[in-house]
Amino acid sequence: MIQIPNVPDGDNIPQLCHQTLVVPTAVLVPAPHGATAAPHGIAMTIGGVPPPRPHCCVSPQALCSVSPQDLAVPNAGWSVAMREQFQHLLRRTADGSWRRIPSYRRGLDYLPEVVQMVVGPVTGPGPRHFLRNLDAEGAGFEYAIFLHSSGHHAQCLCQLGPYLEGHHGFAHGGAIATLIDTTVGACALAVAKTSVMTAKLNISYLVPMPVGAVVVADSRMERHEGRKIFLSCRVHDTKGDTLYAEATALFIQVENTKPPPAARP
Amino acid sequence: MIQIPNVPDGDNIPQLCHQTLVVPTAVLVPAPHGATAAPHGIAMTIGGVPPPRPHCCVSPQALCSVSPQDLAVPNAGWSVAMREQFQHLLRRTADGSWRRIPSYRRGLDYLPEVVQMVVGPVTGPGPRHFLRNLDAEGAGFEYAIFLHSSGHHAQCLCQLGPYLEGHHGFAHGGAIATLIDTTVGACALAVAKTSVMTAKLNISYLVPMPVGAVVVADSRMERHEGRKIFLSCRVHDTKGDTLYAEATALFIQVENTKPPPAARP
Repeated sequence: MIQIPNVPDGDNIPQLCHQTLVVPTAVLVPAPHGATAAPHGIAMTIGGVPPPRPHCCVSPQALCSVSPQDLAVPNAGWSVAMREQFQHLLRRTADGSWRRIPSYRRGLDYLPEVVQMVVGPVTGPGPRHFLRNLDAEGAGFEYAIFLHSSGHHAQCLCQLGPYLEGHHGFAHGGAIATLIDTTVGACALAVAKTSVMTAKLNISYLVPMPVGAVVVADSRMERHEGRKIFLSCRVHDTKGDTLYAEATALFIQVENTKPPPAARP
Repeated sequence: MIQIPNVPDGDNIPQLCHQTLVVPTAVLVPAPHGATAAPHGIAMTIGGVPPPRPHCCVSPQALCSVSPQDLAVPNAGWSVAMREQFQHLLRRTADGSWRRIPSYRRGLDYLPEVVQMVVGPVTGPGPRHFLRNLDAEGAGFEYAIFLHSSGHHAQCLCQLGPYLEGHHGFAHGGAIATLIDTTVGACALAVAKTSVMTAKLNISYLVPMPVGAVVVADSRMERHEGRKIFLSCRVHDTKGDTLYAEATALFIQVENTKPPPAARP
Protein backbone atom coordinates (compact mmCIF):
# COMPACT_ATOMS: atom_id res chain seq x y z
CA MET A 1 0.00 0.00 0.00
CA ILE A 2 1.31 3.40 -0.94
CA GLN A 3 1.80 5.73 1.98
CA ILE A 4 0.85 9.35 1.75
CA PRO A 5 4.12 11.26 1.62
CA ASN A 6 4.67 14.06 4.11
CA VAL A 7 6.74 15.86 1.53
CA PRO A 8 5.18 15.77 -1.96
CA ASP A 9 7.19 13.58 -4.27
CA GLY A 10 7.12 13.53 -8.04
CA ASP A 11 4.97 16.61 -8.33
CA ASN A 12 6.91 18.08 -11.23
CA ILE A 13 3.85 19.33 -13.01
CA PRO A 14 4.33 21.70 -15.96
CA GLN A 15 4.41 24.66 -13.58
CA LEU A 16 7.09 23.38 -11.26
CA CYS A 17 6.41 26.12 -8.81
CA HIS A 18 3.05 27.60 -7.96
CA GLN A 19 4.69 31.01 -7.73
CA THR A 20 5.66 30.96 -11.38
CA LEU A 21 1.99 30.84 -12.15
CA VAL A 22 0.85 33.65 -9.93
CA VAL A 23 3.68 36.08 -10.69
CA PRO A 24 4.54 35.24 -14.28
CA THR A 25 6.04 38.62 -15.09
CA ALA A 26 7.57 39.39 -11.74
CA VAL A 27 10.55 41.65 -11.42
CA LEU A 28 11.88 41.64 -7.91
CA VAL A 29 13.58 44.70 -6.50
CA PRO A 30 14.77 45.76 -3.06
CA ALA A 31 12.09 46.63 -0.57
CA PRO A 32 11.40 50.36 -0.34
CA HIS A 33 12.72 52.30 2.60
CA GLY A 34 10.44 51.94 5.55
CA ALA A 35 8.82 48.74 4.38
CA THR A 36 8.86 45.80 6.71
CA ALA A 37 11.54 43.41 5.58
CA ALA A 38 10.35 40.16 4.06
CA PRO A 39 12.14 36.94 4.92
CA HIS A 40 14.05 37.40 1.71
CA GLY A 41 14.37 41.16 2.07
CA ILE A 42 12.82 41.79 -1.33
CA ALA A 43 9.71 43.28 -2.77
CA MET A 44 8.26 43.28 -6.25
CA THR A 45 6.89 45.57 -8.90
CA ILE A 46 5.07 44.44 -12.01
CA GLY A 47 4.98 46.57 -15.10
CA GLY A 48 6.60 49.51 -13.33
CA VAL A 49 9.92 51.26 -13.72
CA PRO A 50 12.78 48.84 -14.33
CA PRO A 51 14.65 48.11 -11.13
CA PRO A 52 17.68 50.38 -10.63
CA ARG A 53 19.70 47.62 -9.00
CA PRO A 54 19.40 44.58 -11.25
CA HIS A 55 21.82 42.64 -9.13
CA CYS A 56 19.03 42.42 -6.55
CA CYS A 57 16.57 40.92 -8.95
CA VAL A 58 15.33 37.46 -8.20
CA SER A 59 13.71 35.32 -10.84
CA PRO A 60 10.29 33.91 -10.07
CA GLN A 61 11.80 30.45 -10.10
CA ALA A 62 14.00 31.40 -7.16
CA LEU A 63 10.89 31.69 -5.04
CA CYS A 64 10.66 27.92 -5.21
CA SER A 65 13.56 27.64 -2.83
CA VAL A 66 11.15 28.08 0.08
CA SER A 67 8.15 25.80 -0.11
CA PRO A 68 4.87 26.77 1.50
CA GLN A 69 2.77 24.04 3.08
CA ASP A 70 1.16 21.68 0.60
CA LEU A 71 -2.50 21.38 1.57
CA ALA A 72 -3.52 18.74 -0.97
CA VAL A 73 -2.90 15.95 1.54
CA PRO A 74 -5.22 14.34 4.11
CA ASN A 75 -6.06 16.22 7.30
CA ALA A 76 -8.40 15.65 10.23
CA GLY A 77 -11.30 17.13 8.29
CA TRP A 78 -11.22 14.49 5.56
CA SER A 79 -13.97 11.90 5.68
CA VAL A 80 -13.34 8.16 5.32
CA ALA A 81 -14.71 8.30 1.78
CA MET A 82 -12.36 11.16 0.92
CA ARG A 83 -9.35 9.34 2.34
CA GLU A 84 -10.18 6.10 0.55
CA GLN A 85 -10.60 7.78 -2.79
CA PHE A 86 -7.43 9.78 -2.29
CA GLN A 87 -5.49 6.58 -1.67
CA HIS A 88 -7.04 5.08 -4.78
CA LEU A 89 -6.00 8.03 -6.91
CA LEU A 90 -2.58 8.19 -5.30
CA ARG A 91 -1.91 4.55 -6.21
CA ARG A 92 -2.27 5.50 -9.86
CA THR A 93 0.69 7.85 -9.53
CA ALA A 94 3.06 4.95 -8.79
CA ASP A 95 3.73 4.21 -12.48
CA GLY A 96 3.98 7.88 -13.43
CA SER A 97 0.78 7.93 -15.47
CA TRP A 98 -0.76 10.42 -13.04
CA ARG A 99 0.69 13.09 -10.80
CA ARG A 100 -0.72 14.80 -7.75
CA ILE A 101 -0.54 18.59 -7.88
CA PRO A 102 0.36 20.38 -4.65
CA SER A 103 -1.88 23.18 -3.40
CA TYR A 104 -1.08 26.19 -1.24
CA ARG A 105 -2.84 28.69 0.98
CA ARG A 106 -1.49 31.52 -1.12
CA GLY A 107 1.23 31.84 -3.68
CA LEU A 108 3.16 34.56 -1.96
CA ASP A 109 2.81 33.32 1.57
CA TYR A 110 6.27 34.36 2.65
CA LEU A 111 6.54 37.64 0.74
CA PRO A 112 4.10 40.11 2.32
CA GLU A 113 5.75 43.11 0.64
CA VAL A 114 5.11 41.58 -2.73
CA VAL A 115 1.43 41.49 -2.00
CA GLN A 116 1.49 45.03 -0.65
CA MET A 117 3.17 46.45 -3.72
CA VAL A 118 1.12 44.55 -6.24
CA VAL A 119 -2.37 44.93 -4.83
CA GLY A 120 -1.79 48.09 -2.82
CA PRO A 121 -1.65 48.61 0.92
CA VAL A 122 -3.23 45.69 2.72
CA THR A 123 -5.08 47.16 5.66
CA GLY A 124 -7.05 44.01 6.31
CA PRO A 125 -6.19 40.36 5.76
CA GLY A 126 -3.56 39.51 3.13
CA PRO A 127 -4.54 37.55 0.05
CA ARG A 128 -5.45 33.90 0.08
CA HIS A 129 -6.41 31.50 -2.65
CA PHE A 130 -10.20 31.30 -2.81
CA LEU A 131 -10.37 27.54 -2.28
CA ARG A 132 -7.87 27.66 0.60
CA ASN A 133 -9.16 30.65 2.50
CA LEU A 134 -10.59 28.82 5.51
CA ASP A 135 -8.51 27.71 8.47
CA ALA A 136 -10.89 25.07 9.84
CA GLU A 137 -10.03 21.69 8.34
CA GLY A 138 -13.01 20.12 6.62
CA ALA A 139 -15.11 23.29 6.64
CA GLY A 140 -14.65 24.33 3.03
CA PHE A 141 -12.99 22.85 -0.02
CA GLU A 142 -10.81 19.85 0.75
CA TYR A 143 -9.30 18.77 -2.50
CA ALA A 144 -6.42 17.26 -4.39
CA ILE A 145 -5.90 17.55 -8.12
CA PHE A 146 -4.34 14.76 -10.15
CA LEU A 147 -2.98 15.35 -13.62
CA HIS A 148 -2.54 12.71 -16.30
CA SER A 149 0.89 12.46 -17.90
CA SER A 150 -0.65 13.45 -21.24
CA GLY A 151 -1.33 16.83 -19.68
CA HIS A 152 -4.80 16.81 -21.22
CA HIS A 153 -6.77 15.22 -18.39
CA ALA A 154 -7.19 16.42 -14.81
CA GLN A 155 -9.20 14.98 -11.94
CA CYS A 156 -10.01 16.87 -8.78
CA LEU A 157 -11.06 14.86 -5.76
CA CYS A 158 -13.07 17.19 -3.56
CA GLN A 159 -15.00 17.09 -0.30
CA LEU A 160 -17.39 20.01 -0.11
CA GLY A 161 -17.63 21.06 3.52
CA PRO A 162 -20.49 22.62 5.47
CA TYR A 163 -19.21 26.16 4.95
CA LEU A 164 -20.05 25.91 1.25
CA GLU A 165 -23.79 25.75 1.72
CA GLY A 166 -26.35 27.40 -0.55
CA HIS A 167 -29.83 25.90 -0.42
CA HIS A 168 -30.00 24.27 3.00
CA GLY A 169 -28.07 21.01 3.08
CA PHE A 170 -26.70 21.45 -0.43
CA ALA A 171 -23.55 22.96 -1.88
CA HIS A 172 -23.92 26.48 -3.29
CA GLY A 173 -24.03 26.67 -7.08
CA GLY A 174 -21.05 29.00 -6.87
CA ALA A 175 -19.06 26.44 -4.89
CA ILE A 176 -19.65 23.85 -7.59
CA ALA A 177 -18.70 26.41 -10.23
CA THR A 178 -15.53 27.09 -8.25
CA LEU A 179 -14.64 23.41 -8.15
CA ILE A 180 -15.21 23.14 -11.91
CA ASP A 181 -13.27 26.32 -12.72
CA THR A 182 -10.35 25.11 -10.64
CA THR A 183 -10.27 21.67 -12.26
CA VAL A 184 -10.56 22.84 -15.85
CA GLY A 185 -8.06 25.58 -15.00
CA ALA A 186 -5.53 22.99 -13.83
CA CYS A 187 -6.02 21.09 -17.06
CA ALA A 188 -5.73 24.26 -19.15
CA LEU A 189 -2.57 25.21 -17.28
CA ALA A 190 -1.02 21.85 -18.07
CA VAL A 191 -1.87 22.32 -21.73
CA ALA A 192 -0.72 25.92 -21.97
CA LYS A 193 2.39 25.60 -19.84
CA THR A 194 1.93 29.27 -19.00
CA SER A 195 -0.65 31.29 -17.10
CA VAL A 196 -4.27 30.94 -18.12
CA MET A 197 -7.49 32.75 -17.29
CA THR A 198 -11.11 31.70 -17.60
CA ALA A 199 -12.92 33.21 -20.58
CA LYS A 200 -16.13 31.16 -20.63
CA LEU A 201 -17.74 28.73 -18.22
CA ASN A 202 -21.00 26.95 -19.06
CA ILE A 203 -22.41 24.73 -16.34
CA SER A 204 -25.41 22.41 -16.22
CA TYR A 205 -26.40 21.51 -12.68
CA LEU A 206 -28.05 18.10 -12.90
CA VAL A 207 -28.42 16.82 -9.33
CA PRO A 208 -28.23 18.85 -6.09
CA MET A 209 -24.94 18.11 -4.32
CA PRO A 210 -25.22 17.60 -0.54
CA VAL A 211 -22.70 19.36 1.65
CA GLY A 212 -20.21 16.77 2.87
CA ALA A 213 -20.27 14.99 -0.47
CA VAL A 214 -17.04 13.60 -1.87
CA VAL A 215 -16.95 14.06 -5.61
CA VAL A 216 -14.59 13.86 -8.54
CA ALA A 217 -14.43 16.64 -11.12
CA ASP A 218 -13.08 15.11 -14.30
CA SER A 219 -11.80 17.54 -16.91
CA ARG A 220 -10.39 16.98 -20.37
CA MET A 221 -8.89 19.25 -22.97
CA GLU A 222 -11.11 19.07 -26.04
CA ARG A 223 -9.08 21.23 -28.43
CA HIS A 224 -6.34 23.83 -28.48
CA GLU A 225 -6.48 26.67 -31.01
CA GLY A 226 -3.75 29.27 -30.68
CA ARG A 227 -4.18 30.84 -27.25
CA LYS A 228 -7.62 29.27 -26.80
CA ILE A 229 -8.03 26.05 -24.86
CA PHE A 230 -11.43 24.38 -24.92
CA LEU A 231 -12.23 21.95 -22.13
CA SER A 232 -15.02 19.83 -20.69
CA CYS A 233 -15.75 18.73 -17.15
CA ARG A 234 -18.04 16.23 -15.43
CA VAL A 235 -18.59 16.20 -11.68
CA HIS A 236 -19.71 12.85 -10.29
CA ASP A 237 -19.60 10.82 -7.09
CA THR A 238 -16.62 8.57 -6.46
CA LYS A 239 -18.42 5.51 -7.83
CA GLY A 240 -19.61 7.28 -10.94
CA ASP A 241 -23.25 6.55 -10.11
CA THR A 242 -24.39 10.15 -9.78
CA LEU A 243 -23.52 12.85 -12.27
CA TYR A 244 -23.94 16.13 -10.42
CA ALA A 245 -22.88 18.60 -13.09
CA GLU A 246 -21.47 18.94 -16.57
CA ALA A 247 -19.57 21.89 -17.97
CA THR A 248 -17.63 23.28 -20.88
CA ALA A 249 -15.02 25.99 -20.58
CA LEU A 250 -12.76 28.20 -22.62
CA PHE A 251 -9.45 29.35 -21.18
CA ILE A 252 -7.05 31.88 -22.66
CA GLN A 253 -3.29 31.73 -22.34
CA VAL A 254 -1.89 34.93 -20.89
CA GLU A 255 1.82 35.47 -21.35
CA ASN A 256 2.01 38.78 -19.56
CA THR A 257 -0.56 39.61 -16.95
CA LYS A 258 -1.04 43.29 -16.33
CA PRO A 259 -1.08 44.26 -12.68
CA PRO A 260 -4.50 45.02 -11.27
CA PRO A 261 -5.15 48.64 -10.36
CA ALA A 262 -4.83 49.36 -6.67
CA ALA A 263 -8.18 49.10 -4.93
CA ARG A 264 -9.53 52.30 -3.47
CA PRO A 265 -9.23 52.11 0.32
CA MET B 1 -29.15 62.04 3.74
CA ILE B 2 -30.45 58.63 4.55
CA GLN B 3 -28.70 56.97 7.44
CA ILE B 4 -27.80 53.30 7.37
CA PRO B 5 -30.23 51.60 9.71
CA ASN B 6 -28.83 49.40 12.45
CA VAL B 7 -31.98 47.33 12.26
CA PRO B 8 -33.05 46.62 8.68
CA ASP B 9 -36.23 48.44 7.83
CA GLY B 10 -38.65 47.73 5.03
CA ASP B 11 -37.02 44.47 4.06
CA ASN B 12 -40.28 42.68 3.35
CA ILE B 13 -39.02 40.91 0.28
CA PRO B 14 -41.10 38.07 -1.15
CA GLN B 15 -39.43 35.61 1.20
CA LEU B 16 -40.08 37.47 4.40
CA CYS B 17 -37.83 35.18 6.33
CA HIS B 18 -34.63 33.57 5.12
CA GLN B 19 -35.61 30.43 6.97
CA THR B 20 -38.70 29.92 4.84
CA LEU B 21 -36.37 29.60 1.90
CA VAL B 22 -33.97 27.11 3.32
CA VAL B 23 -36.52 24.84 4.98
CA PRO B 24 -39.58 25.26 2.81
CA THR B 25 -41.13 21.92 3.75
CA ALA B 26 -40.10 21.88 7.37
CA VAL B 27 -42.11 20.03 9.96
CA LEU B 28 -40.88 20.82 13.41
CA VAL B 29 -41.21 18.25 16.18
CA PRO B 30 -39.88 17.97 19.73
CA ALA B 31 -36.19 17.29 20.06
CA PRO B 32 -35.38 13.59 20.55
CA HIS B 33 -34.44 12.35 23.99
CA GLY B 34 -30.82 13.04 24.69
CA ALA B 35 -30.44 15.70 22.08
CA THR B 36 -29.05 19.01 23.16
CA ALA B 37 -31.88 21.46 23.56
CA ALA B 38 -32.05 24.25 21.05
CA PRO B 39 -32.96 27.75 22.19
CA HIS B 40 -36.50 26.94 21.13
CA GLY B 41 -36.38 23.36 22.41
CA ILE B 42 -37.33 22.00 19.02
CA ALA B 43 -35.82 19.92 16.29
CA MET B 44 -36.93 19.19 12.78
CA THR B 45 -37.51 16.32 10.40
CA ILE B 46 -38.11 16.68 6.70
CA GLY B 47 -39.97 14.04 4.80
CA GLY B 48 -40.07 11.71 7.81
CA VAL B 49 -42.90 10.34 9.96
CA PRO B 50 -45.51 12.96 10.85
CA PRO B 51 -44.91 14.39 14.28
CA PRO B 52 -46.83 12.59 17.06
CA ARG B 53 -47.37 15.77 19.01
CA PRO B 54 -48.69 18.33 16.56
CA HIS B 55 -49.14 20.87 19.29
CA CYS B 56 -45.38 21.18 19.36
CA CYS B 57 -45.14 21.93 15.71
CA VAL B 58 -43.82 25.32 14.72
CA SER B 59 -44.43 26.75 11.31
CA PRO B 60 -41.38 27.90 9.38
CA GLN B 61 -42.68 31.44 9.63
CA ALA B 62 -42.47 31.23 13.40
CA LEU B 63 -38.71 30.98 13.10
CA CYS B 64 -38.72 34.59 12.04
CA SER B 65 -39.48 35.59 15.60
CA VAL B 66 -35.77 35.38 16.36
CA SER B 67 -33.70 37.27 13.84
CA PRO B 68 -30.08 36.33 13.19
CA GLN B 69 -27.64 39.13 12.50
CA ASP B 70 -28.12 40.84 9.18
CA LEU B 71 -24.71 41.09 7.52
CA ALA B 72 -25.73 43.12 4.47
CA VAL B 73 -24.81 46.37 6.21
CA PRO B 74 -21.50 48.28 6.37
CA ASN B 75 -18.69 47.00 8.56
CA ALA B 76 -15.06 47.93 9.15
CA GLY B 77 -13.98 45.88 6.13
CA TRP B 78 -15.96 47.97 3.64
CA SER B 79 -13.94 50.36 1.49
CA VAL B 80 -14.92 53.98 0.92
CA ALA B 81 -16.11 53.08 -2.57
CA MET B 82 -18.27 50.28 -1.17
CA ARG B 83 -19.81 52.55 1.45
CA GLU B 84 -20.52 55.33 -1.02
CA GLN B 85 -22.20 53.00 -3.48
CA PHE B 86 -24.19 51.36 -0.69
CA GLN B 87 -25.49 54.77 0.38
CA HIS B 88 -26.38 55.53 -3.22
CA LEU B 89 -28.34 52.30 -3.59
CA LEU B 90 -29.92 52.70 -0.18
CA ARG B 91 -31.25 56.12 -1.13
CA ARG B 92 -33.25 54.48 -3.91
CA THR B 93 -35.15 52.46 -1.32
CA ALA B 94 -36.68 55.61 0.18
CA ASP B 95 -39.59 55.68 -2.27
CA GLY B 96 -40.17 51.93 -2.13
CA SER B 97 -39.00 51.26 -5.68
CA TRP B 98 -36.10 49.19 -4.37
CA ARG B 99 -35.62 47.09 -1.27
CA ARG B 100 -32.46 45.91 0.44
CA ILE B 101 -32.44 42.17 1.17
CA PRO B 102 -30.93 41.09 4.52
CA SER B 103 -28.25 38.41 4.54
CA TYR B 104 -27.26 35.93 7.24
CA ARG B 105 -24.32 33.79 8.25
CA ARG B 106 -26.52 30.71 8.06
CA GLY B 107 -30.22 30.11 7.87
CA LEU B 108 -30.45 27.89 10.88
CA ASP B 109 -28.05 29.76 13.10
CA TYR B 110 -30.04 29.24 16.26
CA LEU B 111 -31.29 25.69 15.63
CA PRO B 112 -28.27 23.37 15.76
CA GLU B 113 -30.44 20.26 16.15
CA VAL B 114 -32.15 21.05 12.89
CA VAL B 115 -28.84 20.96 11.13
CA GLN B 116 -27.89 17.74 12.87
CA MET B 117 -31.10 15.96 11.94
CA VAL B 118 -31.21 17.16 8.38
CA VAL B 119 -27.62 16.76 7.27
CA GLY B 120 -26.56 14.11 9.77
CA PRO B 121 -24.18 14.33 12.73
CA VAL B 122 -21.99 17.37 12.47
CA THR B 123 -18.60 16.35 13.78
CA GLY B 124 -16.80 19.39 12.42
CA PRO B 125 -17.97 22.94 11.89
CA GLY B 126 -21.71 23.56 11.47
CA PRO B 127 -23.03 24.81 8.15
CA ARG B 128 -22.54 28.33 6.90
CA HIS B 129 -23.71 30.10 3.80
CA PHE B 130 -20.93 30.00 1.23
CA LEU B 131 -20.72 33.77 0.82
CA ARG B 132 -20.79 34.38 4.57
CA ASN B 133 -18.38 31.71 5.74
CA LEU B 134 -15.50 33.98 6.74
CA ASP B 135 -15.29 35.77 10.05
CA ALA B 136 -12.77 38.45 9.07
CA GLU B 137 -14.62 41.53 7.85
CA GLY B 138 -13.53 42.53 4.37
CA ALA B 139 -11.68 39.30 3.66
CA GLY B 140 -14.27 37.62 1.44
CA PHE B 141 -17.58 38.61 -0.07
CA GLU B 142 -18.95 41.85 1.34
CA TYR B 143 -22.26 42.40 -0.35
CA ALA B 144 -25.77 43.72 -0.21
CA ILE B 145 -28.55 42.77 -2.61
CA PHE B 146 -31.22 45.21 -3.66
CA LEU B 147 -34.44 44.07 -5.28
CA HIS B 148 -36.66 46.19 -7.51
CA SER B 149 -40.32 46.37 -6.59
CA SER B 150 -41.19 44.65 -9.88
CA GLY B 151 -39.45 41.57 -8.49
CA HIS B 152 -37.77 41.07 -11.84
CA HIS B 153 -34.57 43.03 -11.29
CA ALA B 154 -31.89 42.50 -8.64
CA GLN B 155 -28.62 44.31 -8.05
CA CYS B 156 -25.85 43.02 -5.85
CA LEU B 157 -23.26 45.49 -4.63
CA CYS B 158 -20.16 43.48 -3.83
CA GLN B 159 -16.61 44.06 -2.65
CA LEU B 160 -14.45 41.07 -3.46
CA GLY B 161 -11.89 40.72 -0.71
CA PRO B 162 -8.33 39.36 -0.76
CA TYR B 163 -9.42 35.88 0.33
CA LEU B 164 -11.14 35.37 -3.03
CA GLU B 165 -7.98 35.36 -5.08
CA GLY B 166 -7.34 33.12 -8.08
CA HIS B 167 -4.71 34.38 -10.48
CA HIS B 168 -2.51 36.63 -8.35
CA GLY B 169 -4.16 39.97 -7.70
CA PHE B 170 -7.43 38.97 -9.35
CA ALA B 171 -10.65 37.41 -8.14
CA HIS B 172 -11.01 33.67 -8.77
CA GLY B 173 -13.33 32.77 -11.63
CA GLY B 174 -15.32 30.72 -9.13
CA ALA B 175 -15.77 33.75 -6.89
CA ILE B 176 -17.20 35.74 -9.77
CA ALA B 177 -19.44 32.79 -10.64
CA THR B 178 -20.57 32.71 -7.01
CA LEU B 179 -21.45 36.40 -7.07
CA ILE B 180 -23.42 35.91 -10.29
CA ASP B 181 -25.20 32.78 -9.06
CA THR B 182 -26.21 34.57 -5.88
CA THR B 183 -27.54 37.62 -7.69
CA VAL B 184 -29.53 35.79 -10.35
CA GLY B 185 -30.72 33.44 -7.60
CA ALA B 186 -32.09 36.37 -5.62
CA CYS B 187 -33.91 37.59 -8.71
CA ALA B 188 -35.25 34.10 -9.48
CA LEU B 189 -36.41 33.76 -5.89
CA ALA B 190 -38.34 37.00 -6.12
CA VAL B 191 -40.00 35.80 -9.31
CA ALA B 192 -40.77 32.30 -8.07
CA LYS B 193 -41.85 33.22 -4.55
CA THR B 194 -40.70 29.74 -3.53
CA SER B 195 -37.36 27.96 -3.38
CA VAL B 196 -35.24 27.85 -6.51
CA MET B 197 -32.13 26.02 -7.58
CA THR B 198 -29.59 26.74 -10.30
CA ALA B 199 -30.00 24.57 -13.41
CA LYS B 200 -27.71 26.33 -15.87
CA LEU B 201 -25.13 29.07 -15.57
CA ASN B 202 -23.26 30.41 -18.60
CA ILE B 203 -20.61 33.02 -17.89
CA SER B 204 -18.39 35.09 -20.15
CA TYR B 205 -15.43 36.58 -18.32
CA LEU B 206 -14.55 39.77 -20.16
CA VAL B 207 -12.07 41.67 -17.98
CA PRO B 208 -10.02 40.32 -15.06
CA MET B 209 -11.47 41.60 -11.79
CA PRO B 210 -8.89 42.81 -9.23
CA VAL B 211 -9.31 41.68 -5.66
CA GLY B 212 -10.61 44.60 -3.64
CA ALA B 213 -12.82 45.72 -6.53
CA VAL B 214 -16.28 47.03 -5.78
CA VAL B 215 -18.69 45.89 -8.44
CA VAL B 216 -22.39 45.68 -9.16
CA ALA B 217 -23.96 42.48 -10.45
CA ASP B 218 -27.13 43.47 -12.26
CA SER B 219 -29.61 40.68 -12.94
CA ARG B 220 -32.93 40.67 -14.74
CA MET B 221 -35.57 38.05 -15.30
CA GLU B 222 -35.84 37.49 -19.03
CA ARG B 223 -38.76 35.05 -19.13
CA HIS B 224 -40.74 32.69 -16.93
CA GLU B 225 -42.05 29.43 -18.36
CA GLY B 226 -43.75 27.14 -15.88
CA ARG B 227 -41.14 26.23 -13.30
CA LYS B 228 -38.32 27.60 -15.44
CA ILE B 229 -36.99 31.10 -14.87
CA PHE B 230 -34.51 32.50 -17.40
CA LEU B 231 -32.29 35.33 -16.28
CA SER B 232 -29.38 37.49 -17.36
CA CYS B 233 -26.64 39.19 -15.41
CA ARG B 234 -23.95 41.81 -16.05
CA VAL B 235 -21.15 42.52 -13.60
CA HIS B 236 -19.62 45.98 -13.91
CA ASP B 237 -17.82 48.58 -11.85
CA THR B 238 -19.86 51.10 -9.90
CA LYS B 239 -19.57 53.73 -12.64
CA GLY B 240 -20.52 51.31 -15.39
CA ASP B 241 -17.25 51.93 -17.24
CA THR B 242 -15.91 48.39 -17.03
CA LEU B 243 -17.98 45.32 -17.83
CA TYR B 244 -16.25 42.45 -16.07
CA ALA B 245 -18.59 39.60 -16.93
CA GLU B 246 -21.87 38.69 -18.57
CA ALA B 247 -24.01 35.67 -17.84
CA THR B 248 -27.26 33.90 -18.52
CA ALA B 249 -28.89 31.48 -16.12
CA LEU B 250 -31.76 29.07 -15.78
CA PHE B 251 -33.32 28.47 -12.39
CA ILE B 252 -35.92 25.88 -11.49
CA GLN B 253 -38.62 26.36 -8.89
CA VAL B 254 -38.57 23.59 -6.29
CA GLU B 255 -41.70 23.26 -4.20
CA ASN B 256 -40.51 20.39 -2.06
CA THR B 257 -36.81 19.92 -1.54
CA LYS B 258 -35.81 16.45 -0.52
CA PRO B 259 -33.32 16.27 2.31
CA PRO B 260 -29.81 15.41 1.23
CA PRO B 261 -28.51 11.99 2.24
CA ALA B 262 -26.31 12.02 5.30
CA ALA B 263 -22.66 12.32 4.32
CA ARG B 264 -20.47 9.38 5.20
CA PRO B 265 -18.28 10.30 8.16
